Amino acid sequence: MNTYSVKELLSSDHLHKEVTVNGWVKTFRSNRFIALNDGSTINNIQCVVNFEDFDENLLKQINTGAALKIVGTLTESQGKGQNVEIQVKEVIVHGGADPETYPIQPKKHSLEFLREKAHLRVRTNTFSAIMRMRSALSFAVHQYFQKNGFYHVHTPIITGSDAEGAGEMFRVSTLDSKNPPLTAEGTIDYSEDFFGKETNLTVSGQLEAETYAMALGKVYTFGPTFRAENSNTSRHLAEFWMIEPEVAFNDLDANMDLAEDFIKDVLTYVLENCEEDLKFLEQRLLDEEKSKPQAERSDMPLIEKLKFVVDNTFKRVSYTEAIDILRSCKPNKKKQFKYIIDEWGADLQSEHERYLVEKHFKCPVILFDYPAKIKAFYMRLNEDQKTVRAMDILFPGIGEIVGGSQREERLDVLKEKIKALDIDEKELWWYLDLRKFGTATHSGFGLGFERLVLFATGMGNIRDVIPFPRTPQNAEF
Amino acid sequence: MNTYSVKELLSSDHLHKEVTVNGWVKTFRSNRFIALNDGSTINNIQCVVNFEDFDENLLKQINTGAALKIVGTLTESQGKGQNVEIQVKEVIVHGGADPETYPIQPKKHSLEFLREKAHLRVRTNTFSAIMRMRSALSFAVHQYFQKNGFYHVHTPIITGSDAEGAGEMFRVSTLDSKNPPLTAEGTIDYSEDFFGKETNLTVSGQLEAETYAMALGKVYTFGPTFRAENSNTSRHLAEFWMIEPEVAFNDLDANMDLAEDFIKDVLTYVLENCEEDLKFLEQRLLDEEKSKPQAERSDMPLIEKLKFVVDNTFKRVSYTEAIDILRSCKPNKKKQFKYIIDEWGADLQSEHERYLVEKHFKCPVILFDYPAKIKAFYMRLNEDQKTVRAMDILFPGIGEIVGGSQREERLDVLKEKIKALDIDEKELWWYLDLRKFGTATHSGFGLGFERLVLFATGMGNIRDVIPFPRTPQNAEF
Repeated sequence: MNTYSVKELLSSDHLHKEVTVNGWVKTFRSNRFIALNDGSTINNIQCVVNFEDFDENLLKQINTGAALKIVGTLTESQGKGQNVEIQVKEVIVHGGADPETYPIQPKKHSLEFLREKAHLRVRTNTFSAIMRMRSALSFAVHQYFQKNGFYHVHTPIITGSDAEGAGEMFRVSTLDSKNPPLTAEGTIDYSEDFFGKETNLTVSGQLEAETYAMALGKVYTFGPTFRAENSNTSRHLAEFWMIEPEVAFNDLDANMDLAEDFIKDVLTYVLENCEEDLKFLEQRLLDEEKSKPQAERSDMPLIEKLKFVVDNTFKRVSYTEAIDILRSCKPNKKKQFKYIIDEWGADLQSEHERYLVEKHFKCPVILFDYPAKIKAFYMRLNEDQKTVRAMDILFPGIGEIVGGSQREERLDVLKEKIKALDIDEKELWWYLDLRKFGTATHSGFGLGFERLVLFATGMGNIRDVIPFPRTPQNAEF
Repeated sequence: MNTYSVKELLSSDHLHKEVTVNGWVKTFRSNRFIALNDGSTINNIQCVVNFEDFDENLLKQINTGAALKIVGTLTESQGKGQNVEIQVKEVIVHGGADPETYPIQPKKHSLEFLREKAHLRVRTNTFSAIMRMRSALSFAVHQYFQKNGFYHVHTPIITGSDAEGAGEMFRVSTLDSKNPPLTAEGTIDYSEDFFGKETNLTVSGQLEAETYAMALGKVYTFGPTFRAENSNTSRHLAEFWMIEPEVAFNDLDANMDLAEDFIKDVLTYVLENCEEDLKFLEQRLLDEEKSKPQAERSDMPLIEKLKFVVDNTFKRVSYTEAIDILRSCKPNKKKQFKYIIDEWGADLQSEHERYLVEKHFKCPVILFDYPAKIKAFYMRLNEDQKTVRAMDILFPGIGEIVGGSQREERLDVLKEKIKALDIDEKELWWYLDLRKFGTATHSGFGLGFERLVLFATGMGNIRDVIPFPRTPQNAEF
C-alpha cells in the first residue's frame, strides 16, 4: 500500500517512490497545487495535479476541507516553500466540503467565531498546533513523573467528601429532579440517591493523593477537576485538568525544587519536540500583537520566553518580603492598584502578583510562607504560629500557575485547625488516620494544566487551549 | 544527605556507604530486624538494630506502620532473603502506629475488609503491587499512542449531549435541589442551571474524539467515564477510566490490528517493567486458588497468561460464525446456558462469550460484524444491510475488554439511522457536520482501563484495581 502520513513524507525518506497519502485539502491553487494536511504536522504536502489528466467533475470536488486519497510519486519540489511534493497519479474523494457552507475557509477567523465551532476549529493551523502541543505537554507530564519514580494515581472524580474547601461544587445525582424523595424533616433524602449520600464533582485530588503518598512514597494525579464558580474570565474554566504530585518525606523546600524542576522539564520537552508548532504559534502571537500598543506586547517572542523560564532560577520570596515590596511600590503609593496593600495579612490579587512577576522581578517567582488565615486548613503551621508552609508559583502573563504546601502532619495541630474552621471531623476520618498511623512530613502541589498550555502556546484565553471548554452557560458538544 | 529510596538501595550501588532512608515499618523481628518499605518497590530493606545501643522507649515505637528515618551503613547481608542490609546508626520516628488501633497488621486481611479501608489498603503488599502495575499500565498506554503518532485529546467530562446512548447518566447541576426553578409548563427550568441546559457526566468521549480524528488524524482519549447503572457485579464500576483511540482513514480491519497491537504492547511493557510486582501477584493468585476446586483455578499462572496473550494471534470470528458455534455447542444443546441461543440476531451474554474464549478457542477472540439491531447508531452498515462493522475483543476471565467499530461516514445512512432510533438530529448537529465536511472512513474502540488492570494483575474484583471505587451506595473517601 505504501500509505504514509504527511509528516513521514516530508521527512523525505521515500523519494521517487509511489506513495499513498490521505488527508484534507487546505487549499487548491491554479487547478494544480493541492496543499494536503492530515494533522500529523502543521506542514502540508504539496500534491501537483496535471489537470488535463483528470475529470473536471473530480477537480471541482477538490475544495478546502475535502477529504482525499492521493496516489503519486514523491519527488524533489521545483517550487519554493517545500522540499518534496507528490506528482499525482490518482485522486479519490472520500468526502467533499461545500465551499458555500463549510465554515473553515482559508481566511482569518476570529478566535470567538471558532469557539462556536469547537468541533471544526482543530482543522485550522492555530488550533491543530495548540492541540498537538497540549498532547505533547500531557505526555511530558507523565514522562517526567515516571522517570523520577512517581506512581500515577487515579483519584476519584465523584466525591462524597465536601471538606476540600477549594471552591463551589457541582452536585452529582440520579434523584428525580422534580420530585426528589424527602426525609421526615423535609430535606432531600440523599440516602435514596445513587451513592446513598450527597455527592459532588471533585475540586482536587490532593487529599486522596496524600493517602497514596503515605504508602507509595511519590505519587501524582492528572485528572479533571471542577469549580462551579460563575467566573467568566479568560483564565477560568468550570472543568479543567489538574496535575497534583504528592511526596512523602518532602518538606516545602523540596516541594519548591520539585515544582521548578518539573515545569522546566516539560517546557524543555516541547522546545525539543514541538519546534514547528512553536514557530507557528510564535509568529501567530507576533502578528496578533502588531495591532496592540507597544506596552501591551510580550517582552519576548514565545520560544525565547520558554527558554528564559527553562534557563533561569525561579526567584523565591517570602510572603512577608513580597508585602514589603508591594507596600512601598509606586502603583501602591499612587493608588493605581484596585486593592491597596497596607497591612501584612492581605490576600494578594492578580494585579499584585503581576506586578511582582512582570515589573519587579521580571522572572517566575515562588512566594512562600503565607498567612495561615488566607490558606487552606491542611497546610503546615510554622513556628511563628501565624504563617503556613504554603507556596505559589507566579508566571508572567498567567499569574498563579502552581499552588502547593507542606501538609500539616501533626494530628493535634490539624484537629485544632479543623475545629476552628467548623469542619466536621467525621468527614475527614480517613484523612486524620494518615496522621494517626505512620505520619510524616509530606508535601505537594497542584498545577492547572490549561494554564501551562496557555503559557506554552502563547494564547490569551483559556477557552482556546482545551478542546471543548465548559464555562458558565456553555456546555455545547 | 545520601538519602535513597529502598529500590535504589536494593540495587546495591551504594555498598559500604552511609545512607539515609525513610519508610514505614513492615515488621520488626527479635528487637533487631526492621523490614522497612517506602513504596518504591515491593521489596523491603532490612535494617539491623543493635538494640543495646538504643533507648528502649524508642524501640517500643518501632511498630508495624510507623514512619521512620534510618541512617546507617549499607552492607552485604549475612542472612537469607536479601543481598544488602543497613547496619543502623540512627533511628528517628516520624510517626508511630499504635498496634492496638492500626488496622493493617502483618497478617492476612480479606479483600472485603480492605475495601472498607481504601485509604490504607495500598500499604499492603497486594495493593501496592496492584497500584504500581496500574501506574505502569497507564504510562504504557500513553507511550504506545505517542510513539505511534497519536495525539492525546481531553474530551469533556460534563456533557450537554445525551445522544451517546451508552447507558444511564449522572445529572450534574447547581440548581437548588429542593426548590428548583420551573418553567411555565412546570418542568425543571434548566436554562437557570450553571450551563444553561441539562448536563450529565459523559459515558464516552468517542463522539468528541471523532471530531479531533477528522483533523489530527490519529487521536486517543484516556479519561473517566460514568454509568449510573445499578450493577453490583465484580466487573462494573459507576466511575471508571476508558481509553478510546480514533483514527481517520482506518477501516475495521485496521481497527482490529490496532487494538491487538495496542494490548500486546502494554502487556509487554508490564512484563518488562513490573517483574517483581507480577511475581508477587502471581503467587498471591496461586495461594488464593489453592482453596478452590481444580475446575475453577486459572489454566495458567499469571505471567504465563500475559505472555500467552502477547505471543498468540487473537482469533477473529464473525458474529455469524460465533452463533453457529454456539448453537451447536454442548451447553446450548443441554440447556446449560441461562440464555439459549437459537436464532441469528441474539445478543451474546457473558456466558456465551466465556464459552467461546475459554472453552472453544482458548485464546483472546475478536468478534466482528454484529447485527445492526444490537449495536449503536454510529456503526457502519455493511452491504448486507443487516450487520454493522462492529468488533468486540473477548478475554478469558474478563469477557469484553474492547468494543469498537468503523463509524458510519455516510451522511444519508447516518441520518436515516438517527431518525429510525428517534434521536433528535439537532442534538447531533456537530456530529453530522463531520459527515458533511470532508467525511472519510474512520474507526476506533474503547477499552475499559480497569478491565485491563484486572487482567494484568490477576485480581478477581474490579473494586480492587482502582484506588477509590464508586459503586451503588458507595462513594466513601
